Amino acid sequence: MKRKGSSPTMKDVAREAGVALGTVSKVFNGIPVGEEYKRKVEDAAKLLGYQVNTYARALKTNKTLTAALILPNTTDPFFSLLAGEVCKTLARRGYRMLLALSDADPDAEQQCVRMVEQNKVDGIIGLTYNPALEISESVPYVSIDRYFSPAVPCVASDNFGGGQMAARKLLELGCERLLFFRIGSDVPGEADKRGDGFQAACLQAGVEYEALRLRDEDGYAPFLAFLREHLREGRLDFDGIFCNTDKLAYHVARMLAELGVRVPEDVQIIGFDGIRRFGSEALYCSTISQPVGQIAETAVDILLQEDRTHLPSLICLPVSYVSDGTTKG
Amino acid sequence: MKRKGSSPTMKDVAREAGVALGTVSKVFNGIPVGEEYKRKVEDAAKLLGYQVNTYARALKTNKTLTAALILPNTTDPFFSLLAGEVCKTLARRGYRMLLALSDADPDAEQQCVRMVEQNKVDGIIGLTYNPALEISESVPYVSIDRYFSPAVPCVASDNFGGGQMAARKLLELGCERLLFFRIGSDVPGEADKRGDGFQAACLQAGVEYEALRLRDEDGYAPFLAFLREHLREGRLDFDGIFCNTDKLAYHVARMLAELGVRVPEDVQIIGFDGIRRFGSEALYCSTISQPVGQIAETAVDILLQEDRTHLPSLICLPVSYVSDGTTKG
Repeated sequence: MKRKGSSPTMKDVAREAGVALGTVSKVFNGIPVGEEYKRKVEDAAKLLGYQVNTYARALKTNKTLTAALILPNTTDPFFSLLAGEVCKTLARRGYRMLLALSDADPDAEQQCVRMVEQNKVDGIIGLTYNPALEISESVPYVSIDRYFSPAVPCVASDNFGGGQMAARKLLELGCERLLFFRIGSDVPGEADKRGDGFQAACLQAGVEYEALRLRDEDGYAPFLAFLREHLREGRLDFDGIFCNTDKLAYHVARMLAELGVRVPEDVQIIGFDGIRRFGSEALYCSTISQPVGQIAETAVDILLQEDRTHLPSLICLPVSYVSDGTTKG
Repeated sequence: MKRKGSSPTMKDVAREAGVALGTVSKVFNGIPVGEEYKRKVEDAAKLLGYQVNTYARALKTNKTLTAALILPNTTDPFFSLLAGEVCKTLARRGYRMLLALSDADPDAEQQCVRMVEQNKVDGIIGLTYNPALEISESVPYVSIDRYFSPAVPCVASDNFGGGQMAARKLLELGCERLLFFRIGSDVPGEADKRGDGFQAACLQAGVEYEALRLRDEDGYAPFLAFLREHLREGRLDFDGIFCNTDKLAYHVARMLAELGVRVPEDVQIIGFDGIRRFGSEALYCSTISQPVGQIAETAVDILLQEDRTHLPSLICLPVSYVSDGTTKG
C-alpha cells in the first residue's frame, strides 16, 4: 500500500519492517546484513514506495557512494575485464561506478578527470596515458599501470617479475637464442618493466638476447621484416620470443606460420596479459597472466580507505605463467 | 589565481570569460559551443577554481545528466563493445554513464534497476534476462535485445533478417544440406529470431534443414556428439552450418577440425555477432555482423528524447554479412 501525500522516510521503513533504523541504512548503503533483514527492509520499502534520494543524502553526508573509472576504451579485452572487475568490486562495497572513456587521448583524459571531479564522486580509479595529468587533491585517486608520484597510489601487475619469469621459462624450456619484441605507447608506464625484467633475467643467466622495441604508430610490419631478415634456409636465428602483450604474440605466431616456421617445435613464444578468446574461452598463447581481479580489488580497497595518511606508492601484484600452445611446456 | 573565501559562481565564470551566462551553462552541460568559447569558459573556470556542483544542480533542475547501463558482464565481447559505444554516445550528449553488472541473474537485475532508480538517473538502458523485470514508469527505460511491452522501447539488431541472410548466403555459396546450431538463454529474446529468420528463408527456398537447439547449461558437448553421429566415412551429412553466435561457430569449427572435416572446403560455417579477436583484430569466422555503434546511438537517442508520447516499441537495425575464412565467399 502506497501512502499518499507525504513521502515515506527511512524511519517509516524501519517501523514497517520491524527493524532498527541502522539496519535500514545499511541495506540502502549496500552494507551486508542478514538475508532475512535485507528482505524485510526491501519489502517494507517497496510496500511504502520509499525511494532513497541519493542526491539529497550526498549533500547532507558529503558522500555519493559513487566512484569513477577512467579507461581508454572497452574494446581492448584487458580494459573490459578490468572494467568488469572494478564494477563488481565497487558494487560489493555498496558503490556505483561511473565509467568514463578517454580513447587514450591526454586532453580527453584530463576532461574525464575534471568531469568526474565536478560530479563530486568519492574517488577515481584511472588508467591513463597523460603524463601531466592534473589530479585534484580533494578527490581520492588510484592509478593503474602508471606511476605519477609517491602521493598517488599506483596498482599494477608485477611486470618486472613477469618479464623475468618469461626469460627463465624460455631458458628452462631449452631455448638458447632469445628475442624480445615490444610494441606500445611512448608514455613511460609500469608495463615497460616487462622488458626490464626480461633483460635482468638474461643478464643474470649470462645469456645475450636481441630486441626490437616499437611504438604503436609503427604497426606490426617491422616485426615481420625483422623475422624475414633473420630467417636462413627456413630456420629462424632465434628459438624463444617474449612478446610484451598477447596481441603481439598472436601476430608473431601468425607471421611465423606464414614464414613456415613451426611453433612451438622450432620457436617458442610467450606473451603477456592472459587474454582469452571471447573473454572466457581458450588463451591465445602461452603467457604471463595478469591478476585482473586482484588489481581491481586492491585499487578499490586503497581508494575507499578512510585513513589516507599512509598509503603505499606502488603495489605490484603477482603474475603467473600459463602454458598454452606456443611453448613446449 | 584562486579566490579565497566565497566560492565562485557561474556568473563569476561568465564575467571572467567575457561570455554570456548561457554559454557557461552550455559548456558545463556538455552542449556544443564554438571551440573558442569553450576554451574561454574552461580557462576562466580553472582560473577561478570553479567546481560545478552537479548534486546541487540535480536537486534544482531535477536532471542528473547521468544514465545507467545494465549489462550481464563485460567479459563477453559483445557486451563490452556495447558498453563502450553507449558510454561514448552518452558522453557526446553531455551525459555520464553508470555501469551496473548483473551477471544475468534475475534478482541482481531487479536490484540494479532499483539501485539506479534510487540514484535518480535520467534514464536506464538495460540488457537483461529477467522476463518479469519491474521498471518504474518515472524513469525512462530502453531495453536492448529483449521486448517487454509496447510501452518499453526495445532496440536490437535485425535478428530475423540476419537469420534469413545466413540461409540465403549458404545456399548462394553452393550449400545443399543445411544445419542450424543454437545455444543460449531459456528466456525468450530478440536473438531467438535468428533461428526464425533462418527457417523462413529455408522454407521460402524449398530447402529442408536440421537443427539442434540447446540451453547454455547444456554446454557444447551435445554439438560434438551430433556431428559425430552425422559423420560417414569422414564426410559430414551437412555442408552448411549456421551458428547463432560467433562463439558457437568458433567451437564448431574446432570440433570439425578435430573430426578431420575441412572448413570451408567440405563444410561452410556462418556465425552471428561480428566479434573480433582482441576486440579489433581478425574476425573468428564468416558472420552476420551486428551494428553495435548504431544500436548504442539509437538506444541513447530514444532514452533522451524529450517527447515520450510516441516512442517506437521495437527498432531493428540492419546487420551485414562479412566473409572471413569459414565460407567460400
